[in-house]
Amino acid sequence: MTSQPLLNKDTRLCISLAARPSNFGTRFHNYLYAELGLDFVYKAFTTANLASAIGGVRALGIRGCSVSMPFKEDVIALVDEMDASASAIQSINTIVNDDGCLRASNTDYIAAADLIHARGIDPATPFLLRGSGGMAKAVAAAFRDSGFENGTLIARNKTRGQALATELGYRWAAEPAGLSAPLLVNVTPIGMTGGAEANDLSYSAEAIAEATTVFDVVALPAETPLILAARAAGKVVITGAEVIALQAAEQFERYTGVRPTPEQVAEASAFARTHMA
Amino acid sequence: MTSQPLLNKDTRLCISLAARPSNFGTRFHNYLYAELGLDFVYKAFTTANLASAIGGVRALGIRGCSVSMPFKEDVIALVDEMDASASAIQSINTIVNDDGCLRASNTDYIAAADLIHARGIDPATPFLLRGSGGMAKAVAAAFRDSGFENGTLIARNKTRGQALATELGYRWAAEPAGLSAPLLVNVTPIGMTGGAEANDLSYSAEAIAEATTVFDVVALPAETPLILAARAAGKVVITGAEVIALQAAEQFERYTGVRPTPEQVAEASAFARTHMA
Repeated sequence: MTSQPLLNKDTRLCISLAARPSNFGTRFHNYLYAELGLDFVYKAFTTANLASAIGGVRALGIRGCSVSMPFKEDVIALVDEMDASASAIQSINTIVNDDGCLRASNTDYIAAADLIHARGIDPATPFLLRGSGGMAKAVAAAFRDSGFENGTLIARNKTRGQALATELGYRWAAEPAGLSAPLLVNVTPIGMTGGAEANDLSYSAEAIAEATTVFDVVALPAETPLILAARAAGKVVITGAEVIALQAAEQFERYTGVRPTPEQVAEASAFARTHMA
Repeated sequence: MTSQPLLNKDTRLCISLAARPSNFGTRFHNYLYAELGLDFVYKAFTTANLASAIGGVRALGIRGCSVSMPFKEDVIALVDEMDASASAIQSINTIVNDDGCLRASNTDYIAAADLIHARGIDPATPFLLRGSGGMAKAVAAAFRDSGFENGTLIARNKTRGQALATELGYRWAAEPAGLSAPLLVNVTPIGMTGGAEANDLSYSAEAIAEATTVFDVVALPAETPLILAARAAGKVVITGAEVIALQAAEQFERYTGVRPTPEQVAEASAFARTHMA
């Protein structure tokens, strides 16, 4: 799969907006457009003027707009409607343009909640969650809205960490040292390719040994040091590669009206990951 | 040539804006991108909000924007610079975005002037030119700026026709009846596929017989009734297909920095014309 039909005037455009675009979305969506024979094209953009960019989405009839860091909150003022997934966390990663009406949702939240359900994790399970950024908020809210009441958010940033924990009804801790729980969740860049902590574990070997399930939101690599350690210890794992593929599939369905099969999502995701950087 | 490489995040987008987009530009440019291995993609759009659409071009870093009816004059207020081709006729059909600086030109004017020169028509040749719209202005100005002093503009709309004629230093007539000249130019929709006058001639058989050169700006079909009649009578002809291909090639060079060969332009134009409607 290395080509797509030549565009025509009626081809629909979907875009993404991010400070530092990756190739994942452009590869993932265009792969599936070709695979499914849809007359769409997808292209990543960045912008120095979010309001004008969203004005352009509206004025040009761009069908869909994926929103990444650092625009997920600032874009709230620029859309017409937010569904429950976006309003629950006041963060948008997906905009659908229906004839000039911009409807927003958050498929990171949806994907996290779906994966939690799909693994059949008991909501009574205590969990630790590291991180306090926008994605941490989406994942922590997905736990809360899935009925998980016994959680501890771990974040060095006391202001953000405590505020998020209080908002969701969870405890807060500054550091993971000495903490353990059956469910460990990482929503920090620890373990991410190219990052300062690419080779680090966000939880200690001891904490991993005591856990039953490990969920790492880092998507590049899919096999982070944390996931590798958890697999080696025989734990149930949820990977960031699963999150990114599932959230992209949710976006794909919202933009095109077509739901790709899990096999197609896996193929597209594998293709996109080989061209991700 | 039926496909193009899958897009990536760095692929550059060029667009067009028109009330009723045709497929010509989308097919022409994408064909040449594929042929020349350029990492570009082109897509036609319409808009109900020109200012926001151009704001989007700027904010999204869209590399080029072709402008068609009815936006060619309204867009003047939205660009940063106009070159001589656009300022001469106060009409824009091409915008190049250099890091947020929008530079405008008019490749219809450039293409008409180039074709006049290429045919080696003596500027002393008297001519008749039917039409008073934006394209008529571009073509008439190309004649004036090529040194043609002896012209008559023919337009039923007395206000527009007289104003344009006065501005360019030409005579005005309401109807072609009784007029003849060695050079006949049509810049009205007469002879255009799908129009009310698709089967009509913009000049009488007698006028054609007395002419030496016939220039029809109508591009669809390339062989209008006027061009067919002129060819049958052994006249030199300039067709709208030549104008549209040459102006698109001028746009292509401005957007990409690459000048396609005349053969590539002819191929791309032939390809685009088969998918034009």
